[in-house]
Amino acid sequence: MRPSGRAPDQMRAISMEAGFTRHAEGSCLVGFGDTRVLCTASVETQLPPWLRGKGKGWVTAEYGMLPRATHTRGRREAASGKQSGRTQEIQRLIGRSLRAVVDLEALGERQITLDCDVIQADGGTRTAAISGAWVALRIAVDKLISDKLLETDPIQRKVAAVSCGIHNGTAVLDLDYDEDSSAGCDGNFVLTSDGNIVEAQVTAEGECYDEEGLLRLLRLARIGCNEIFAAQDRATGR
Amino acid sequence: MRPSGRAPDQMRAISMEAGFTRHAEGSCLVGFGDTRVLCTASVETQLPPWLRGKGKGWVTAEYGMLPRATHTRGRREAASGKQSGRTQEIQRLIGRSLRAVVDLEALGERQITLDCDVIQADGGTRTAAISGAWVALRIAVDKLISDKLLETDPIQRKVAAVSCGIHNGTAVLDLDYDEDSSAGCDGNFVLTSDGNIVEAQVTAEGECYDEEGLLRLLRLARIGCNEIFAAQDRATGR
Amino acid sequence: MRPSGRAPDQMRAISMEAGFTRHAEGSCLVGFGDTRVLCTASVETQLPPWLRGKGKGWVTAEYGMLPRATHTRGRREAASGKQSGRTQEIQRLIGRSLRAVVDLEALGERQITLDCDVIQADGGTRTAAISGAWVALRIAVDKLISDKLLETDPIQRKVAAVSCGIHNGTAVLDLDYDEDSSAGCDGNFVLTSDGNIVEAQVTAEGECYDEEGLLRLLRLARIGCNEIFAAQDRATGR
Amino acid sequence: MRPSGRAPDQMRAISMEAGFTRHAEGSCLVGFGDTRVLCTASVETQLPPWLRGKGKGWVTAEYGMLPRATHTRGRREAASGKQSGRTQEIQRLIGRSLRAVVDLEALGERQITLDCDVIQADGGTRTAAISGAWVALRIAVDKLISDKLLETDPIQRKVAAVSCGIHNGTAVLDLDYDEDSSAGCDGNFVLTSDGNIVEAQVTAEGECYDEEGLLRLLRLARIGCNEIFAAQDRATGR
Amino acid sequence: MRPSGRAPDQMRAISMEAGFTRHAEGSCLVGFGDTRVLCTASVETQLPPWLRGKGKGWVTAEYGMLPRATHTRGRREAASGKQSGRTQEIQRLIGRSLRAVVDLEALGERQITLDCDVIQADGGTRTAAISGAWVALRIAVDKLISDKLLETDPIQRKVAAVSCGIHNGTAVLDLDYDEDSSAGCDGNFVLTSDGNIVEAQVTAEGECYDEEGLLRLLRLARIGCNEIFAAQDRATGR
Amino acid sequence: MRPSGRAPDQMRAISMEAGFTRHAEGSCLVGFGDTRVLCTASVETQLPPWLRGKGKGWVTAEYGMLPRATHTRGRREAASGKQSGRTQEIQRLIGRSLRAVVDLEALGERQITLDCDVIQADGGTRTAAISGAWVALRIAVDKLISDKLLETDPIQRKVAAVSCGIHNGTAVLDLDYDEDSSAGCDGNFVLTSDGNIVEAQVTAEGECYDEEGLLRLLRLARIGCNEIFAAQDRATGR
Repeated sequence: MRPSGRAPDQMRAISMEAGFTRHAEGSCLVGFGDTRVLCTASVETQLPPWLRGKGKGWVTAEYGMLPRATHTRGRREAASGKQSGRTQEIQRLIGRSLRAVVDLEALGERQITLDCDVIQADGGTRTAAISGAWVALRIAVDKLISDKLLETDPIQRKVAAVSCGIHNGTAVLDLDYDEDSSAGCDGNFVLTSDGNIVEAQVTAEGECYDEEGLLRLLRLARIGCNEIFAAQDRATGR
Repeated sequence: MRPSGRAPDQMRAISMEAGFTRHAEGSCLVGFGDTRVLCTASVETQLPPWLRGKGKGWVTAEYGMLPRATHTRGRREAASGKQSGRTQEIQRLIGRSLRAVVDLEALGERQITLDCDVIQADGGTRTAAISGAWVALRIAVDKLISDKLLETDPIQRKVAAVSCGIHNGTAVLDLDYDEDSSAGCDGNFVLTSDGNIVEAQVTAEGECYDEEGLLRLLRLARIGCNEIFAAQDRATGR
Repeated sequence: MRPSGRAPDQMRAISMEAGFTRHAEGSCLVGFGDTRVLCTASVETQLPPWLRGKGKGWVTAEYGMLPRATHTRGRREAASGKQSGRTQEIQRLIGRSLRAVVDLEALGERQITLDCDVIQADGGTRTAAISGAWVALRIAVDKLISDKLLETDPIQRKVAAVSCGIHNGTAVLDLDYDEDSSAGCDGNFVLTSDGNIVEAQVTAEGECYDEEGLLRLLRLARIGCNEIFAAQDRATGR
Repeated sequence: MRPSGRAPDQMRAISMEAGFTRHAEGSCLVGFGDTRVLCTASVETQLPPWLRGKGKGWVTAEYGMLPRATHTRGRREAASGKQSGRTQEIQRLIGRSLRAVVDLEALGERQITLDCDVIQADGGTRTAAISGAWVALRIAVDKLISDKLLETDPIQRKVAAVSCGIHNGTAVLDLDYDEDSSAGCDGNFVLTSDGNIVEAQVTAEGECYDEEGLLRLLRLARIGCNEIFAAQDRATGR
Repeated sequence: MRPSGRAPDQMRAISMEAGFTRHAEGSCLVGFGDTRVLCTASVETQLPPWLRGKGKGWVTAEYGMLPRATHTRGRREAASGKQSGRTQEIQRLIGRSLRAVVDLEALGERQITLDCDVIQADGGTRTAAISGAWVALRIAVDKLISDKLLETDPIQRKVAAVSCGIHNGTAVLDLDYDEDSSAGCDGNFVLTSDGNIVEAQVTAEGECYDEEGLLRLLRLARIGCNEIFAAQDRATGR
Repeated sequence: MRPSGRAPDQMRAISMEAGFTRHAEGSCLVGFGDTRVLCTASVETQLPPWLRGKGKGWVTAEYGMLPRATHTRGRREAASGKQSGRTQEIQRLIGRSLRAVVDLEALGERQITLDCDVIQADGGTRTAAISGAWVALRIAVDKLISDKLLETDPIQRKVAAVSCGIHNGTAVLDLDYDEDSSAGCDGNFVLTSDGNIVEAQVTAEGECYDEEGLLRLLRLARIGCNEIFAAQDRATGR
């Protein structure tokens, strides 16, 4: 029995509010249950120096957590003067995941930065961030297309992410904070809408797992991502 | 004529959504027009070392701006490794303003941190932050009282803040971004609900001003703060 | 009765020693009583990147305090690795105050940096710094003019600053450290020699104040600044 | 055909020189082909504050790369003032992997730090580091046991890691730098000597992969880790 | 012929103004020609953690240079966020030099920090700093003795420092900036009043030197230090 | 009697393994007894901005110590976020020493960086680093010459360094850690193969010394450096 009463393969309610803020070229407030992440996409024509003049663009991400998004207040990273290892690991993952579904040459010499800021945390912030960032990116790219700045669509497919883990001996989908902090192992899967894997990352936390366990988690992830793809379609009006 | 079409002494629409996030002891999403700031109050029993054992508490604030809260993306302070002078100036002002209405001895040996994070910026973020932080603080203190952790109410009165400035030769209330960036002088006033001044700060930006100008701005600020006090009452159900 | 025995509207002795150091284009050791601040003006032809090619110059300031300028030794900011919020707030104020009396277009494409370093502190270091920095700036600009690098004088008027506050219920001028640390409210006024206000900033420290109090402080500030303007004239031989 | 001429399931030569340095309680210079990492284990009786008094110990890791371990010189992290996201990600992985095979309660109130410094890099530095760190840890723990500081052995089994990836459409084991920089996808597997998985992490780099691909990589990893386990036995004289 | 017209073994004018600032327990504005360094001694009863409870004290130093002490403005170290290698090298040298003449056990469990801040630089700032710091230290220790906080004098002898170098083939004493920037080799000697060497440090800058050259510089240093010892006696009224 | 049983003028065994790593243009693992330092020379065509276009090159050095090179583990500088004063002092000395034997104009517009990383420390790491860095530099320059990138050899002579000190009243050569931590005074001498001094630096640690002591140390240093010059010749095949 899961603490939340959900079935093992049941996602939390997914919400995606496109256009939550108005200055960014694309924005989305994504919710996986009580986890809420604001994702914005900023289009800039200036590329990082190492990419200039190569005829292609770049998609990158930054991640942050408001100090009191969590149960107890965490230290503000801007005040402590550096981003934690966890923050950097997550923002690298978000960037890689989005780039996996974008044709950087078709994007042209521009950079899109996805800022993913956690307003409220209840487990799965990185997977919500990836899923919501795709919506913000989609909106920003649609704007480039409708403004005639892009001719072909550089986004090749959808990408979504979800966490899975083994909790009390059962493989479960979309862990909330209670499950996450007591799971024997947990992982994050980043999948594309055409059925492929962008990233699989499963870590033992106390209990090691075997090949069969890995496959079971991957199959749960497919169930979850399909729900997210549908929510992405609704949020972007497709 | 103001860019927004408002009358000189007209505030933008004020919104205050108490309880916007659930982990903090108090929270409020405050809006002054398009400016939106999430304020949370976190109660901690651990005081900073220099205050321990003195039989009183502390109220402090931190301020941040999401990178794309603004028209063009700004650098994330956590990534650049330090808080700007502007950020520090603002968070010091917020802390001072709140402490001016709290009896720190009545608060007992606990610290309340107000985190004010700008979700969307359109001028006046620091004044919205002070005004919304009071609501978050009020809710957190009410919780301490209803939990029987406090016997007497340490909050002595309401505090609110608003910006005023001279724009095209006219003294105007609650500047939005367009006015703020072209005002001849602008200032921020922090006032208490019993009619006193906590802080007045008026800066010439191109045009100096005289005593008469200073008084005119102060009087506009009174008009604005009275509206904010009413919104604070509504948000906290008083 | 003031701790120093001064009348409420009495400044401390003002000293201004122009040319205290020899490398800077302008320098002044300013004293307000025991407070002593070394101000130097450095003229550079390289502008910050965001100002280049706009046909105008820039005036900026940096502020520091020697570790043992104060009653007890403070941490050296260079050793702690960052400037405090107080330092940044002060140096921003100094820069704004000086720019308010300079025609940046007439200055041409050059930057003048005012370094204000507190040798000994006894209250009012930021106001002494602004007042002394004007002298250093005046000397540096006079040198540019006599070297035929400038044709028209970009300095439009004098600027001076002084602190005022309410101490034991009385409005007093030019607070020293003893008064400053026990004042109910205190503020800084930056005034121009043609009678206008550049910046007014009054903060409650324990006691709020009203419109009448604000005006009384402003009037004291006028008295003090007039004395400082006279000292500036003497120091620059005008 | 692999650039190195190896068969798809062929590891590079594994070398493990125990006791490479003399001050550390355990040390090992590990080589996977031209990749060479110096791993040292330092035993300290002082625990990090958050772990004190809980009757258990801690195992952690730090990772570094000498500036010219690589084909072109990289910036020294100590000089740039911070560890990169990559460095932090790797050292977190090493620490997690080692802790997965240690009974922290049996270790008692002491901390063991594994420092993994890359002397020469040719792909697979993090997997070599994990594999060599186990040897350093084993030696350090054996010393604690022979010094009668530990009664029961806190190390529960061996742990090893290896990279795998899809290169030119073929799943290959233990990628060197040439393969790593052109692989369609690559991953790292951390396995225990009793056949379980501690961590699986597979990332698409240009080409997404499917469930079948994931399994094929995992099976290659088992082949590689078995070879590493044998080398660990030889290096520790078991 | 030296640029300044001095004889090879001629010091610049030495000035030592004891008590230049009033908060520090000891202070001295030292001048070697146009080089001027403010040295203050701060006595604190709190020792650094690694020295507590060992029945002895500590003497340490910090060094700084005002941004416009030099011919062209240098970056403020507090603003750049770190002390340069040169600064750290110098402050380590000052601390070592002073400790060489202090009996740390006789000092008791207290720390004296010598802050040496260069007001104006014209070569030899570190040697002036050491020489002036001794005066500030002497005054602070005299105060501890007259306040009955110390029974025996922990200062065992005087210490002074001077630079020497080979300029245009001639060994010269007390290099000013012009000589320093064109000397073939230069060095700093720290000597005690009983004729011993605390530190000798001679560096080739373009021209190597031999044993004879080293000795010639050392002999010049003795001449210079004897003059400084006399000035120290005058400044401390001995 | 020395702790190691060596005669006062006896060096430890010197080892120099050229080509220890393969990516660097030159490399050498140098050993002075148990002290082992890996020195690599990296040739880059990009000069630091302040040297470009002047028709000459630059030689610089960086120094690091692996955390467990020492008896007890030290903090990793990359983790603490800055290089210590000691580190900076050493790397500046290494750079100066190497530049003293290189004709920077003959080197052409390229920079050679010597990275000296201490693998194991037992006293004398900086002198071993200088001596080994010369070998790495020699190999890198030989490669430039054999690749026809240089016509004339910019290296003018050999340079080597050794420590000397007074231990238990006896002047001794090449101090190991035991001697170093209890010597009354110690110093480092950097000498060239044609008999000159590049740098002499002798510091009292508890006992001051006199002219005779300085000379005795210098003479020991000559004995040591002659041995090192021979080892450099063997390592570079001359």
